[in-house]
Amino acid sequence: MIHKRSNLKPAIWDDFFRGNRLACARLITAVDNHPDWIPEILDRLIPRQKGAIRIGITGPPGVGKSTVTAALARRAVKAGHTVGILAVDPTSPFSGGAFLGDRVRMQDLGDDGRVFIRSLASREGHGGLSPSTPYAADVLDAFGLDRIFIETVGVGQAELDVLTCVDLTVLVLQPVTGDVIQALKAGILEVADLFFVNKADLPGTDALLESLKFLFEISRPREDRPVPPVMAASAREDRGLDEAYAEIERLIQALVQSGRYDEKKQARLEREIQLAIREYLWERYAAEAGAHDKLRSVVERLLRDRQSPFPYIRDMCARVRLELVKGKASGKNDD
Amino acid sequence: MIHKRSNLKPAIWDDFFRGNRLACARLITAVDNHPDWIPEILDRLIPRQKGAIRIGITGPPGVGKSTVTAALARRAVKAGHTVGILAVDPTSPFSGGAFLGDRVRMQDLGDDGRVFIRSLASREGHGGLSPSTPYAADVLDAFGLDRIFIETVGVGQAELDVLTCVDLTVLVLQPVTGDVIQALKAGILEVADLFFVNKADLPGTDALLESLKFLFEISRPREDRPVPPVMAASAREDRGLDEAYAEIERLIQALVQSGRYDEKKQARLEREIQLAIREYLWERYAAEAGAHDKLRSVVERLLRDRQSPFPYIRDMCARVRLELVKGKASGKNDD
Repeated sequence: MIHKRSNLKPAIWDDFFRGNRLACARLITAVDNHPDWIPEILDRLIPRQKGAIRIGITGPPGVGKSTVTAALARRAVKAGHTVGILAVDPTSPFSGGAFLGDRVRMQDLGDDGRVFIRSLASREGHGGLSPSTPYAADVLDAFGLDRIFIETVGVGQAELDVLTCVDLTVLVLQPVTGDVIQALKAGILEVADLFFVNKADLPGTDALLESLKFLFEISRPREDRPVPPVMAASAREDRGLDEAYAEIERLIQALVQSGRYDEKKQARLEREIQLAIREYLWERYAAEAGAHDKLRSVVERLLRDRQSPFPYIRDMCARVRLELVKGKASGKNDD
Repeated sequence: MIHKRSNLKPAIWDDFFRGNRLACARLITAVDNHPDWIPEILDRLIPRQKGAIRIGITGPPGVGKSTVTAALARRAVKAGHTVGILAVDPTSPFSGGAFLGDRVRMQDLGDDGRVFIRSLASREGHGGLSPSTPYAADVLDAFGLDRIFIETVGVGQAELDVLTCVDLTVLVLQPVTGDVIQALKAGILEVADLFFVNKADLPGTDALLESLKFLFEISRPREDRPVPPVMAASAREDRGLDEAYAEIERLIQALVQSGRYDEKKQARLEREIQLAIREYLWERYAAEAGAHDKLRSVVERLLRDRQSPFPYIRDMCARVRLELVKGKASGKNDD
């Protein structure tokens, strides 16, 4: 990860740790707009994090994720938690109307003072989720919030990537044909900890519940994970939400007590460190090999001559000399 | 990419280049089951490729992708082309019935001798597409087929990844609410070259066509790409297929003449080379740093002490010495 000094005002840190909401909003904007400031910001935040629980709310478009998120957040506040909500603005003007409606409803929540709501701009390209979402959650965690809801746009690979940063995933479905299959194909079945069947007043609910049951029977669940609970509810009519929220808190307790909470956190951090070092290695190689300029002409030659790329790859790899000079990887750069 | 000597019998190459279908099937099985044989196999195949056109057929589950693929393949054969079809078996027994039905229908095609059909086992995890799909297409290309259809399981990030290996993407939709939005969110709009509205005898077709038109109006199409054509058809009733196939061939001509065919091929190869070198660099680093063993304990310490990972990342990166020794990256390893 490239590190650049931010131009954040030094006073922002005091403000932030004193609970200033504007400072919190500014730091989220900073991680969202300036990826190269993230190391500096996290260096400050991580020692102050208390270990919030991050809850992903995912599901196909139109199932009512925002309404479900707001309803669960309200219950978390009532139970004495402080709550953060991260939602992603779809670039599509299609769902703009409905989403704005939800946002207004959630804004009521925001006035409470114990809830911090933030939309992240969605990014060009696949899936539409901002890659800064996990870091925005890091900001909220350091801000002292202990339940952070992250609402995704849809169900897909980009969502799955973001869900690797959460502790618990709620999959919201509705009684409409096709959604279950779509979620199944997207691999969401493997990551969902709770199935939330919304709009359970609509016809087709029983069939959906049956097919989920069937699904769990025929698919071998991962051995280290129990069959996830299925809750039927109607967020719009506010039915079944108390039960769903209680189930989420029960899952959180089980997660922490079983040690899986710590394991997930470790795996996440390990992956993050690996990705950062991988990126650095490529940049070093590219600078050394002039790859940014030369690779294009190599490729043109390979295609013109109908040659396999592997001899080139093998040659270039064979030419790499990589060593680690001595140094204390202690957290201080002392060489 | 790790390279291991395959245990393929030497005779397979003669058989393959003489047009033996069993040899072709065996090579696809080989790239599918033994990723580390891929370099050896492609070294042999690439000089013999004639530049087949690869056509991705994608869309949500249930829209009739297999039927559309079979119908288009039949027309390609009639137009004098030799055809390959790659389809991916869903692990889900849900769609097993329908898919097997399609497969039987496609098998009729296979008896023709000018069509080679192959299902690839889907892989654990996200999206279910086998990562060997592009290499299976490489095999079919070298086998002398000139139109290769690649049918995906659904619409998602994994599908998008595979579609980076095709020259042309057909998005199949049906008149059912939600599919368009789902495809839009998945970013498929940006990669689809042709919109194929299947089951156009069903109610809702006009609404779908209208909303697609609206979609193209409000979304800025990428400047280098024209608004994609929309074809309404019914594969089951075999209506509108001649027109759709003619449109595909017209798009192929435009692709080749505009130079975009070559550009896509170059970008693909560049990406592949970069990924292979990146992987090698990480493995070299990991061996040098003992990362496979040590990273876990570093992560445990960071979490225990609530420390940011970035000082560690910076230290480790600062310790990396990377240089390229002289050598002729000529396709022959002469140092």
